[in-house]
Amino acid sequence: MEKKTVEQITSMDVDFAQWYTDVVKKAELMDYSSVKGCMIFRPYGYAIWENIQKDLDARFKKLGHENVYMPMFIPEGLLQKEKDHVEGFAPECAWVTIGGKNELAEKLCVRPTSETLFCEHFKNIIHSYRDLPKLYNQWCSVVRWEKTTRPFLRTSEFLWQEGHTMHATAEEARKETMQMLKVYEDFYLEALAIPAITGRKTEKEKFAGAEETYTIEPMMHNGVALQGGTSHYFGDGFAKAFDITFTDKDNKTQYPHQTSWGVSTRSIGAIIMTHGDNNGLILPPRVAPIQVVIIPIAQHKPGVLEKAGELSNKLAETFRVKFDDSDQSAGWKFSQYEMKGVPVRLEIGPRDIENNSCVLVSRVSGEKKVVSLDNITEEVSAMLDAVHDELVNRARKNLEEKLNTATTYEEFLDVAENKPGFIKAMWCGDVECEDKLKDVTGGVKSRCIPFVEDKLSDVCVCCGKPAKHMVVWGRQY
Amino acid sequence: MEKKTVEQITSMDVDFAQWYTDVVKKAELMDYSSVKGCMIFRPYGYAIWENIQKDLDARFKKLGHENVYMPMFIPEGLLQKEKDHVEGFAPECAWVTIGGKNELAEKLCVRPTSETLFCEHFKNIIHSYRDLPKLYNQWCSVVRWEKTTRPFLRTSEFLWQEGHTMHATAEEARKETMQMLKVYEDFYLEALAIPAITGRKTEKEKFAGAEETYTIEPMMHNGVALQGGTSHYFGDGFAKAFDITFTDKDNKTQYPHQTSWGVSTRSIGAIIMTHGDNNGLILPPRVAPIQVVIIPIAQHKPGVLEKAGELSNKLAETFRVKFDDSDQSAGWKFSQYEMKGVPVRLEIGPRDIENNSCVLVSRVSGEKKVVSLDNITEEVSAMLDAVHDELVNRARKNLEEKLNTATTYEEFLDVAENKPGFIKAMWCGDVECEDKLKDVTGGVKSRCIPFVEDKLSDVCVCCGKPAKHMVVWGRQY
Repeated sequence: MEKKTVEQITSMDVDFAQWYTDVVKKAELMDYSSVKGCMIFRPYGYAIWENIQKDLDARFKKLGHENVYMPMFIPEGLLQKEKDHVEGFAPECAWVTIGGKNELAEKLCVRPTSETLFCEHFKNIIHSYRDLPKLYNQWCSVVRWEKTTRPFLRTSEFLWQEGHTMHATAEEARKETMQMLKVYEDFYLEALAIPAITGRKTEKEKFAGAEETYTIEPMMHNGVALQGGTSHYFGDGFAKAFDITFTDKDNKTQYPHQTSWGVSTRSIGAIIMTHGDNNGLILPPRVAPIQVVIIPIAQHKPGVLEKAGELSNKLAETFRVKFDDSDQSAGWKFSQYEMKGVPVRLEIGPRDIENNSCVLVSRVSGEKKVVSLDNITEEVSAMLDAVHDELVNRARKNLEEKLNTATTYEEFLDVAENKPGFIKAMWCGDVECEDKLKDVTGGVKSRCIPFVEDKLSDVCVCCGKPAKHMVVWGRQY
Repeated sequence: MEKKTVEQITSMDVDFAQWYTDVVKKAELMDYSSVKGCMIFRPYGYAIWENIQKDLDARFKKLGHENVYMPMFIPEGLLQKEKDHVEGFAPECAWVTIGGKNELAEKLCVRPTSETLFCEHFKNIIHSYRDLPKLYNQWCSVVRWEKTTRPFLRTSEFLWQEGHTMHATAEEARKETMQMLKVYEDFYLEALAIPAITGRKTEKEKFAGAEETYTIEPMMHNGVALQGGTSHYFGDGFAKAFDITFTDKDNKTQYPHQTSWGVSTRSIGAIIMTHGDNNGLILPPRVAPIQVVIIPIAQHKPGVLEKAGELSNKLAETFRVKFDDSDQSAGWKFSQYEMKGVPVRLEIGPRDIENNSCVLVSRVSGEKKVVSLDNITEEVSAMLDAVHDELVNRARKNLEEKLNTATTYEEFLDVAENKPGFIKAMWCGDVECEDKLKDVTGGVKSRCIPFVEDKLSDVCVCCGKPAKHMVVWGRQY
């Protein structure tokens, strides 16, 4: 008998980073390549991304957004047009300096993000209030040169969507910014089964060139936060830098107001580290490439494979199904699909067939349920929903348990060192205190100012001066 | 009243190239950017690509192919592993030489195609006959540095899919090569309404590193051919260069056999130049972003907008529908959507509503049909099918009319100069004759050796030596 694959996965309590690496490799989500900092999305990993794309794309289009595709290169001069933006991104750009056989007159950055390209295009196509709003989105890969990389979480090239919109008024653009944050929050909860803290980034942590950045911050198993998606309000800063104007209804020249927002393949990292366990992946049913795996028991017995095959065809009309009729043992298959995080396993053997039933097993609770074949579609559907709900509940419990509080400097240091997770603490609003807290804790940064702030005390946890906000702090991927 | 947009389109008989440029710009398929050689896919153009992707992707998956995503960079050393391949592609590579702030130790090519990356990965994951076949596909953008560019047809960056497969035997790989060519042929005909000549490329024209290249070659309005898609058989050449081996059932070490195949956004160029007319675009219904445009007549009259809106909602359940209730005149709207190539126009006014009917107008024939609202879904569906069929027939007629024959050198030169289109002519098999015919005609190249060859004569049209094949020749985009 073959060795159980799961035995090769490091326990997450022993070494969380190694557990993560084992899971992404052994579940065949990714592979390394000789291209430094880049990774290969294998079929199982890419299929998760396709399901994420399908879900998000439908949400965007329902709200009137249209997909476009911009060039992947940004000439150096174009990138430099908005001062804060280029300062933020230039240090991590990859530069094309040779095209064909010739040195280029102007070097080209491989896009780290596409605000500048969109602005150049907006300038061409926006002239009148009738041309607004422009609600654009783009699915593409972007490059940010990273020194240390980790599959899905931090790679030099990654896949994402970037929404870019232009509006006649600041009010409308602000509304769009918040709407798209809400889309991300709903998507994380409804599709990925991941609850998150949402709020505004501090000045220090906001997107280069934005007036305001909003974020959703889910909490991983090990107490480290992950920026799940961001939505930015730009005001008219880029419009002024790119001289984009329109004539309003009163025939006056105005600058339009802008937003951008993005979610990337690190959402797959969030899935792994939010839901996974020591047996491997657990995939949320709505984006799982395989929702139900059908495993025949005693498959050499007459009629078993036929019946299991029929069942597979029937369920494939409604779900993403894998029917494993290979000659591996049933036990090996159990471990294999457990490791791959398939939400529901369906077992069917001779006795089940006699009883017109089969066994459903939940990947998350391990619950086994004997169900009738007569209403199998409803039963599978119900168990998939139950898996989703249970994942949400577990993740919410983890998020709440890891939401710590500190009211004094000493307490902050103590929590930062001893309690993995978020820390709620008051803040004076000065970047010096952010920097200091990060330095003394070795990496605890402000994650966001949540929309609903508790008043924990009157003073900044760092300097003791009057507090302006309650900030949620934490280590991050 | 606003000026009719179509008045601004150059007639195709006057200047075909200008007609093309007018159409792609005015139908808002694309825009230029300051990035040399690259283009912007605007929403209407990108939506065509999304529909193409959806159709092709379903065909690939139905045949067992899985999507993956490889890095966009190829280290110079990796590109050089297969000698013919690097010779073919190195001259048109864009090179990244700086990452972050540092000069790279090894420069990185922005992928012009990904055989080398796939091979490196295949080496890691193929060990036993049980690991075969690998049937992979990737949707991405690629870069080939071009001196002269033309929207959709030839740009430094373009979007495509590239399939890469590995098989245990040469026979199986050859079968895959031909199967995927057939998928492309079916796709062009069934989705794009474009018939094409199919066949094998000559040695000179085959893909760099392939043993055999197969192609589908549709014929544009103006007599110029376009390579619509290619499917390559590699034998075990790359496998040997990359040392990819597997253990077969008899425990012997073998090299696997390989294919690759691709269709790009130039298929959108093919649509434009196969179907378009002097009023603008004509989009094949199965990939048209808008299949039916609903235009209310006398829309200020009571009840018209309501009824048209109801109809729009009903039809949107089945078709991609645009309901234009803007305050532009009906005449302006007619021209606008004609120019944008919407296959079916639905007009509805007060008199139609009284009669429980509406008017359907075909973009291709101009036929007007009064139909009952009772079975409007079937009527629209029938007219969309009729538009598709009529497009196929027109394109086939064009292809046949432009399929010329030459049996002597003089005749070849005469046809090349005076009759736009393909030229069927016998060929000895020597590259010298291909080169000479190209030179003397100023660009007529071998398009392919069709699967069914006519025997036009015994001798090569160029040198008079014994003929080996009938070749279809032509100018190309």
